[in-house]
Amino acid sequence: MNRCPVASRRGLLAAAGGLVAAAAAGPARAAAGGAADAGGAAATEPFWGRYQGGILTPQQRHACTAAFDLTTRKREAVEGLLRTWTAAAARMANGETAAPLGTDLSAPAPDSGVALGLSPARLTVTVGFGAGLFIKNGVDRYGLAAQRPAALVDLPRFTGDQLIAERSGGDLFVQACADDAQVAFHAVRQLDQLAYGVADKRWLQTGFLPDAPAGETPRNLMGFKDGTDNPAVGDAGVMEQVVWVGSEGPAWMEHGTYAVFRRIRISLEHWDRMEVDFQEETIGRRKYSGAPLTGTKEFDPLDLNRADAEGEPVIAENAHVRLAAPASNGGATILRRGYSYNDGVTFIAERWPPWRQGMLYDAGLLFVAFQRDPRSGFIRIFEPMAKLDALNQFTTHTASGLFACPGGAAPGEFIGQRLFMTG
Amino acid sequence: MNRCPVASRRGLLAAAGGLVAAAAAGPARAAAGGAADAGGAAATEPFWGRYQGGILTPQQRHACTAAFDLTTRKREAVEGLLRTWTAAAARMANGETAAPLGTDLSAPAPDSGVALGLSPARLTVTVGFGAGLFIKNGVDRYGLAAQRPAALVDLPRFTGDQLIAERSGGDLFVQACADDAQVAFHAVRQLDQLAYGVADKRWLQTGFLPDAPAGETPRNLMGFKDGTDNPAVGDAGVMEQVVWVGSEGPAWMEHGTYAVFRRIRISLEHWDRMEVDFQEETIGRRKYSGAPLTGTKEFDPLDLNRADAEGEPVIAENAHVRLAAPASNGGATILRRGYSYNDGVTFIAERWPPWRQGMLYDAGLLFVAFQRDPRSGFIRIFEPMAKLDALNQFTTHTASGLFACPGGAAPGEFIGQRLFMTG
Repeated sequence: MNRCPVASRRGLLAAAGGLVAAAAAGPARAAAGGAADAGGAAATEPFWGRYQGGILTPQQRHACTAAFDLTTRKREAVEGLLRTWTAAAARMANGETAAPLGTDLSAPAPDSGVALGLSPARLTVTVGFGAGLFIKNGVDRYGLAAQRPAALVDLPRFTGDQLIAERSGGDLFVQACADDAQVAFHAVRQLDQLAYGVADKRWLQTGFLPDAPAGETPRNLMGFKDGTDNPAVGDAGVMEQVVWVGSEGPAWMEHGTYAVFRRIRISLEHWDRMEVDFQEETIGRRKYSGAPLTGTKEFDPLDLNRADAEGEPVIAENAHVRLAAPASNGGATILRRGYSYNDGVTFIAERWPPWRQGMLYDAGLLFVAFQRDPRSGFIRIFEPMAKLDALNQFTTHTASGLFACPGGAAPGEFIGQRLFMTG
Repeated sequence: MNRCPVASRRGLLAAAGGLVAAAAAGPARAAAGGAADAGGAAATEPFWGRYQGGILTPQQRHACTAAFDLTTRKREAVEGLLRTWTAAAARMANGETAAPLGTDLSAPAPDSGVALGLSPARLTVTVGFGAGLFIKNGVDRYGLAAQRPAALVDLPRFTGDQLIAERSGGDLFVQACADDAQVAFHAVRQLDQLAYGVADKRWLQTGFLPDAPAGETPRNLMGFKDGTDNPAVGDAGVMEQVVWVGSEGPAWMEHGTYAVFRRIRISLEHWDRMEVDFQEETIGRRKYSGAPLTGTKEFDPLDLNRADAEGEPVIAENAHVRLAAPASNGGATILRRGYSYNDGVTFIAERWPPWRQGMLYDAGLLFVAFQRDPRSGFIRIFEPMAKLDALNQFTTHTASGLFACPGGAAPGEFIGQRLFMTG
């Protein structure tokens, strides 16, 4: 019983046939679908298409994000990995195992089996490229340096950044979202398994959303509705302007987008001891209704010019919503698609009164935002916020990443194919 | 905008009235219920009763477990905390805030608001007492030392234990389970907030289960169905024998139970590279069907005596199910109610071939088991397993706890009341 592992992929290669149980798993999972979905939405999100999934897709309840560092020196190996990932992701989005399980039980299986019998749970898999795919430590490992998009900058150091290197960056980025935490983790795990010998995982971060009633904006861990001001994903024109790369190049990025990842710890203990009206001034919105301080209903527009009887702005100069608003940033807009995270507690000494130290929550916001160009998107918006936002006394950015997410693939193509064809 | 926090609890104390929005939240959450629940089960689990919830309750999809260390020296403060926790837990199980929100927005709110508008999501809150409530560092802080149950032993060091002190133990234990990760975390957070000045949180660990179709045994992160052999929670006689403390004493523990907590890291990368038939020999069951190696269907009984043509046992001597089976342990039985956990990746050097080191999953099993007496339950079963189980080469116990969970409370009582009345 003490056998050594086998490194062979016989199971994967030999798996032309389909184990009866495994073959049945696809339809079974698809059929079991609806139960997990509020509002009777379908349990399957399309994988193939002009755009990658997981960007405009209505948010699933769970996210499993991860980054990988490429360890290979061979361009073909990277291309092969993306080809394999694409095929596996398409199968998993359909509720299938990453590859057919095969009938040979004397070999390692090409899938851990942890999602057998489960609904596809609206799984989406989104792949992005970090700067390291193009150039790393000054080395053009794969002959792709000339194809690095100008928009794929190195993010500047923002005021207050406390970034943990091993939770940040990475050559490849994967965002798996699903209505089932196990389905999302399964997707990342199988892609990781397929990357053996080509890329090592660097970090993994899970997130969740509450099961808010259909049509209601979910509350974040500060107890505020989060996402009210997002641009309309149903408006194709707005999405082309805000999210999708057009003809500005590089050509391989057309229909792609840039993902900004920030792990934002929130000092929940500190926040919870604040007066509600102070929380509201900090955000610029009412806590319970979500209405701006200049309105009465959640979707009332912000009136950034309104002053009170003393001539003070109703929405303070350093209120979060003011600084984040397109009107404060020359129209700059991004599509936020974040999740809350809860990584338990860690020893932390607070910077602010009552200067507590001890085991405090390591919880907050797994901020993910998509935009056509981070220079006119996240960076434009966040640089002033990092300096001025009243919310900063409760938040610390502990990890960061910027990734170029290419367009989607048609059946027979793979994600990133146009880069490797043209690069 | 840079005010200091206020430590006052005015919000809590002054909140006799009910904010309109908050008052409406209870019914709204109850009404929104069913959507989250597979099989159309009710969205509310009863809080009051002879037994605490979260023990026989059909498992919810998410768990948020935590432990607290008491910092007070006053017995009345501990009693007051349990009284407050009981009231808050009962409200939250009903989909309400931990306390009425009140109308005073110029005070901190007695609830973070993160669960407003959500279904109760079948929330259960289970409270347990660690040895430290009775005696700590030789000190009987609360005059309760004589009431420490004999069954609340210090767990022995098991072979292979690699326990992290700051993830283990604790004077008080809380298990919040719900079908919504945010609802479960909310419950722990509010109890934590109510403990300010009386107890500090020590650790917090989340877990999840897949959304397996109704009636199917969920698969763990090893891809095997987990829980097939559990005793029947629907059989009151079995539960009285296996789970609930009877007249053996102490009297305050009648209708209570003992919770064993173990955080078990599983080397998923190593496991995934094992041949399927080797995985099956290790467990003693078929991976895809869940059948014992001596059967063809999941619920076929284990035949521990069956031998193959060579006279070797079909279920190996060191197979996991053999060592865990009541028949191998003089009938010892526990009720397992575990969850998978996924805490991302950490740097780990593996002990086994292929001796990988690097960023590996910190994921596995949040093992929770309930039993009438851990000496004849978990300890009896696990001591030989810790030495012999073939599964041990893939698992490491990294945290541990044993907690006495008293019986339930009737309205007007609080959890643990009989201890404080008699102690």
